[in-house]
Amino acid sequence: MSRLRVLCFSISVDGYGAGPNQDLEHPLGVGGPEMFDWFFRTRTWTRMHGGEGGETGVDDDLSAKGFEGIGAWIMGRNMFGPIRGPWPDESWKGWWGEEPPYHTPVYVLTHHPRAPLPMKGGTEFRFVTEGIHSALEQAKDAARGKDVRLGGGVATIRQYLSAGLIDDLHLVLSPDLLGTGEHLLHGINIRALGYEIAEHVPGTHAISHITLRKRALNR
Amino acid sequence: MSRLRVLCFSISVDGYGAGPNQDLEHPLGVGGPEMFDWFFRTRTWTRMHGGEGGETGVDDDLSAKGFEGIGAWIMGRNMFGPIRGPWPDESWKGWWGEEPPYHTPVYVLTHHPRAPLPMKGGTEFRFVTEGIHSALEQAKDAARGKDVRLGGGVATIRQYLSAGLIDDLHLVLSPDLLGTGEHLLHGINIRALGYEIAEHVPGTHAISHITLRKRALNR
Repeated sequence: MSRLRVLCFSISVDGYGAGPNQDLEHPLGVGGPEMFDWFFRTRTWTRMHGGEGGETGVDDDLSAKGFEGIGAWIMGRNMFGPIRGPWPDESWKGWWGEEPPYHTPVYVLTHHPRAPLPMKGGTEFRFVTEGIHSALEQAKDAARGKDVRLGGGVATIRQYLSAGLIDDLHLVLSPDLLGTGEHLLHGINIRALGYEIAEHVPGTHAISHITLRKRALNR
Repeated sequence: MSRLRVLCFSISVDGYGAGPNQDLEHPLGVGGPEMFDWFFRTRTWTRMHGGEGGETGVDDDLSAKGFEGIGAWIMGRNMFGPIRGPWPDESWKGWWGEEPPYHTPVYVLTHHPRAPLPMKGGTEFRFVTEGIHSALEQAKDAARGKDVRLGGGVATIRQYLSAGLIDDLHLVLSPDLLGTGEHLLHGINIRALGYEIAEHVPGTHAISHITLRKRALNR
């Protein structure tokens, strides 16, 4: 059965998934990019950007695995771009250039309708205005038995998590402190929602890769 | 110079340092004891309780080191015992029996005066009603150049941390989710206070031992 998965999601030691003051120049917020240092060093990231080299090891292995078996993505509007409110025109096509690294349909949650946006390499951004449940249903249909990966950002993950819809959540604990920004788990009783620590493995540069998994209901 | 150190302090993956509903039967709150599983398995803990055996490795090494070079301890009233308000009598002598594992003066923060309480093995509980700065001053005097270890609990660590008085903070990330309880860092801008990740090492059973250190002011 198709699962909804959050994979390779960086958080700081103090639990933030993004820094404060996000804008066009700081899509991850101030201090946010440091949290992806472990990813920027990997061979997977280097190849995604057409380069050679990059480090192998646990961080790289899990980065590569995060793209395997995924039939569709979901992301929040703010992960897709810095524009808020109605779309002024069709010019914003995401942060990722002509050929985004998704190669599947990508369902973008928004309150403002927009026509589907096909990109090179099989990615197609599809804008969903009917909310998180509808986006998940559409994404699972499109995934045809493969898994759906929920990219982010923090607010979108918190919505899906609070609704108990995420099957597993692979967090990458980065050796950073943000101090402020968007906290991933605060105020969500993740234990009461039925999640448990399924596994953890030390990273290459990351402190640890930690997987939270929702317990099956009938046990 | 004598430092104020928090050592071997367990937190859950979701950032809690104690579970909810603390009382006499649940001094660490509901779900709290699971967070000490890594410690209960160590040779250090076993020996502290007069036993033989116990596991060696990183978790044990750091547990043992946490008692070295310490000349005094500070703890909050709620770590000393479950009694709130004025002391009804002198009968409560801590959770640790006749010979507590401290073997130094232990400054207990309280709003209610009480005579010093000498125990076997060199531990003496001294009750401080003048606040955290006074307790730190007294503890540093008593430590005679050695370090002062701040035991906890969460509320006490948060007070010292917010005041910028902690030199280093060794957190032990335990493979647990509490969901609710006392959150260690939420609402404290630890980055603005000048802390950074000084080191991290995978644990034996703990996910990671992570040390936060306050940057020296003059650099």
